This record gives sequence, structure tokens and C-alpha cells, in this order.
Amino acid sequence: MARDGFAGFLGHLKADRKSGASELARACLKAAAARARDAAAPDAQALRDLLSQSAEVMRGARPSMAPIDNLLGRWQQRLAELPAAELSAFRLAAARAAEALEWESRQAVQAAAQAACRFIGDDRTVITHSLSSSVSACLGMLRTRGLRVIFSESRPLDEGWRLAQQLSVWSVPATLITDAQLGLFAAKADLALVGADSLLADGSAVNKAGTYLLALAARDQGIPFYVCCESFKWRNEAAPELEAMDPSELGAPGWPGIEVRNIYFDVTPARLIDGWFSEQGLCRAWPCG
Amino acid sequence: MARDGFAGFLGHLKADRKSGASELARACLKAAAARARDAAAPDAQALRDLLSQSAEVMRGARPSMAPIDNLLGRWQQRLAELPAAELSAFRLAAARAAEALEWESRQAVQAAAQAACRFIGDDRTVITHSLSSSVSACLGMLRTRGLRVIFSESRPLDEGWRLAQQLSVWSVPATLITDAQLGLFAAKADLALVGADSLLADGSAVNKAGTYLLALAARDQGIPFYVCCESFKWRNEAAPELEAMDPSELGAPGWPGIEVRNIYFDVTPARLIDGWFSEQGLCRAWPCG
Repeated sequence: MARDGFAGFLGHLKADRKSGASELARACLKAAAARARDAAAPDAQALRDLLSQSAEVMRGARPSMAPIDNLLGRWQQRLAELPAAELSAFRLAAARAAEALEWESRQAVQAAAQAACRFIGDDRTVITHSLSSSVSACLGMLRTRGLRVIFSESRPLDEGWRLAQQLSVWSVPATLITDAQLGLFAAKADLALVGADSLLADGSAVNKAGTYLLALAARDQGIPFYVCCESFKWRNEAAPELEAMDPSELGAPGWPGIEVRNIYFDVTPARLIDGWFSEQGLCRAWPCG
Repeated sequence: MARDGFAGFLGHLKADRKSGASELARACLKAAAARARDAAAPDAQALRDLLSQSAEVMRGARPSMAPIDNLLGRWQQRLAELPAAELSAFRLAAARAAEALEWESRQAVQAAAQAACRFIGDDRTVITHSLSSSVSACLGMLRTRGLRVIFSESRPLDEGWRLAQQLSVWSVPATLITDAQLGLFAAKADLALVGADSLLADGSAVNKAGTYLLALAARDQGIPFYVCCESFKWRNEAAPELEAMDPSELGAPGWPGIEVRNIYFDVTPARLIDGWFSEQGLCRAWPCG
């Protein structure tokens, strides 16, 4: 990837409103591997520094998304541990380290989905909000097992529509509702299952705005609320950075003096979460493991 | 109003998704008055029966909306009490009875708004959901008193946009959010104030879907949640009838096997309500008065 290619990637990374955090983290690792192979550098040490800086920049681009921070941090660590070597050998080792992490990320998502799928079992109705790669993988695993799904539009970008398409292809009986109907429909489900962009140090889940409302409704209606994500989404921080996006995404006409806010994420406190699925299985009390 | 005119009105009444319950109830009373003046009838007793039947039909047209039921029920009562008279005198008396109720409804909405306005006072931030004539009247009364408003789109018909327009004209600093952000923004307000389409026998509020979620968030975030509506919205029933509307209003493309639901109303249980404003003032425990 040429220097322009990387700058271009950074632009996409910042602007991407459709991909989930894990997906974007793996895109970063792909970009990192390409940069390891192509970036101009006089020697291995200079390349190591350059790659680490690139990783730093990517980590700062989407602060709400823990996997970007965690996986690229992990890569920086591995870069630092790589033995001094001839430039071309170092390129290869650095690229392979990024690709290995990409694979580990995929594996972890699948394993977290499997843990949730094993727990949920046959003939259940799941309510969810927004689109999560691990939740969607889990629903796919349950598609022949009497699964029913209730899911929300997830304004303003309607990630629910993408889930609708998948569920339709899988022939899973499913019901699409507005985000505002989450409270009405919570009691019709056996459990709520959502993904997360990050889990905070205390187990609170940063996820698409509206998740907190679903968790409140689930607790009030007496159904359990679970979060499913790989451990690359765990963070040490206590306070989240909640990204505010372009207000124009709401499609509202402008009115003088009326501010439009478009904060993508909210925080579901750990006290509203009945369990956390990850590649390590289900844990019912935070911290896991 | 000719027979066709009344049939036409009934069609509008059933299809109207924009007007609030009080507004529609007053439209019914207008139609009732017109019918009293114009409907073909051989004598006063036949007209009394016909008008009472018309009222019955209007009461059945929008079962979620208590004021239609209450105000037309009240009119039926007054019709029954009208003394036997010559046809043209009876027409006039029946029409005036409907017009008097229309005026009583307007007065009650204003008085409920005043009660809320007196209580809220200066320099407060109010969060609300959907559009209510009494809440909007109350916000108008507070417009020069340091009021700030946070309000939601209220999908699928975006009643929030109409509120935006009013607030903008009144120069009230205000923030429009998606319904999904109600949980994020509840803590930024001093109180939540919503209207209701009906109050059930136990004080639970039937209002636009999403109201229950705001009430849950308000309770969880420690801000009080109030309902403001005139007593014509009180019902004796325990169970609400929640109208389901055309799923196409969500604007979602169709997917085979995916059902789309569009239930307009949810029920906020009385235990989540800190007070009820009506033309009788504020009551902090149900039943009022």
C-alpha cells in the first residue's frame, strides 16, 4: 500500500459508518500488513518505527472501537518483539504478525458466537438491536433450530435492514420494529442478545445508541439481557469516548436554533447485563475469567 | 354535513396519523355538530337516535384514543337528556351541546398545560417524546422563561419535526435526537414531560411508542417523569387497545419472511410516573382527585 493508499484508508476508516468494530479492526490489520510490505523505509528499524506510528494513527481514528485499539496495540507489541533483521525479512514478519492477528480476531468472533449459540439452544425468540458480527454469526448457527428474531431498525443508518436481509436468506421467522417499539416487544422474546463496540473496565457495554433502552426494557419485562463479543473488545478504561456523527444523517430539515445530535453509542451499565459471551464462554459476573 | 360528508369524515378519522387524540376528538365534535344541523330525520326522536348512532361509530373508529370515547360518550349523555322538542330546536340544542364540549376540551387542555407550566417554572430543561397538544402548549407558555427542550424524532411519522418547527418559531433552544438516543439524553434534562392518548384505570399512560423507554431511562437516570393531559383522556378500562398501523410507514423494503410491525402506542406503567398534570392540577398518586 503506497503512502497515498494508507492516507486513503485512514479517510475511509474515519468515515465508515456501516462496518462493525471488529470488521474495521481487521481492515486496519489488512492495511497494516500492506503497509509492512510496501512502505518506503531505509532499514528494518526505520520500518518498525514507521509501522508503529501508523498503528498509533489508526488506533486514534475511531476511539469508540476497542478492537482497533486492542488489535493494533497487540501488533505494536509484536513489532517491538520482532528480532532485528534484514529489511525484507522484517517486512514479511511484520505483515505476517498483522495477518495472524486478523485470523485470531475472526476466530474469537466465531467462538464468542458459538458460546452464545450453545447457551441459547432450540426454539427461542431473541430480541436484538443494531447489527453485530458475533450476534449475527450466532443467529446464523441457530437458523435451523426453531429460532425467531425480533430486531429494530437502528436509526439513523438502519443496520437492522442488513440483518433483515440475512435473516430472510436464512428463512428465520423475524419481526422488524422501530427502535421506539423495543419496549413493546421485549416481553415477546425469551432473551435479549446484543453485540458491543467495547466493554469498559467494569463490564459496561458501549454499543449502538438504543442498546441501553433495550437493556432497561429487558430488565423491566423480566427477560435476561446478554452481550456477546470477543475479548478484543474489552478495554481497561472506565469512561467511554462516544463518537458523535454527522447530524445530517437524521435527514431532518434545518430549523433555526434547533440543534440536531447524532451520538452513535450509548453505555449499558454492567448492572443491567445478565451475562457476557466471549471466546472464553459465558461469564455471569464481571470481570470475566 | 351530508351523509356522504359524514362517511368521508369517518374515513379521515380512521386514516389520520398526524393529529393527537384531543384534536381528533374535537374534530369528531365538529362533525357531530354538523350532523346535528344537517342529517335527514323525520322528527327529533329519530334525529336523537341517528346522532347517538353516529357518535357510537366515531367512538369505535379510534379505540386507542380516550378523548374520542369520553367526549362523544358525554355528548350521547347530553343528547339523551335533551328534552323532547320540535325538530329544528332539537337540531340546534344537539349541535350546541357538541360545540360546548369542544370548548370544554380546549379549556381542559390549556388548564392542564398551565398546571404543568406553573410546576416546571424557570430555567429548566425538559425532555419529551412525540407531540402532545398539552405539552406543546406548556412549552409555549415557558418559552420566555429560560426553557430548554430535548426531543425525539418519534418514528415513523416524525412528530418531533413538527415540535421542532414550533420551538424554532418560539426561539426556544432545543435539541433533536433519534428515539434511540433518549437514554443517552435523559440525564441532561431536569425532568421528562409527555402527553398521553389515554390514561388507564390504574394511571398507566398509553402514548406514542417509545414513551415507556423514556420513562425507564428517566427512572434509571434519576429524573422525574410526568404525564400531562386533560381528564377527558382518563379511561375506566384496565387494558389498552394498541392500534397497529400500516407497516409501510417504516419505509423498509420487503424481505421474504420478515414481518414488519408498526404499533403506535406503548403503555407506561403508573409505577414509572412521578405525577399527572390535568386541568385539576398536579396529582402525585393515582387515582387523582
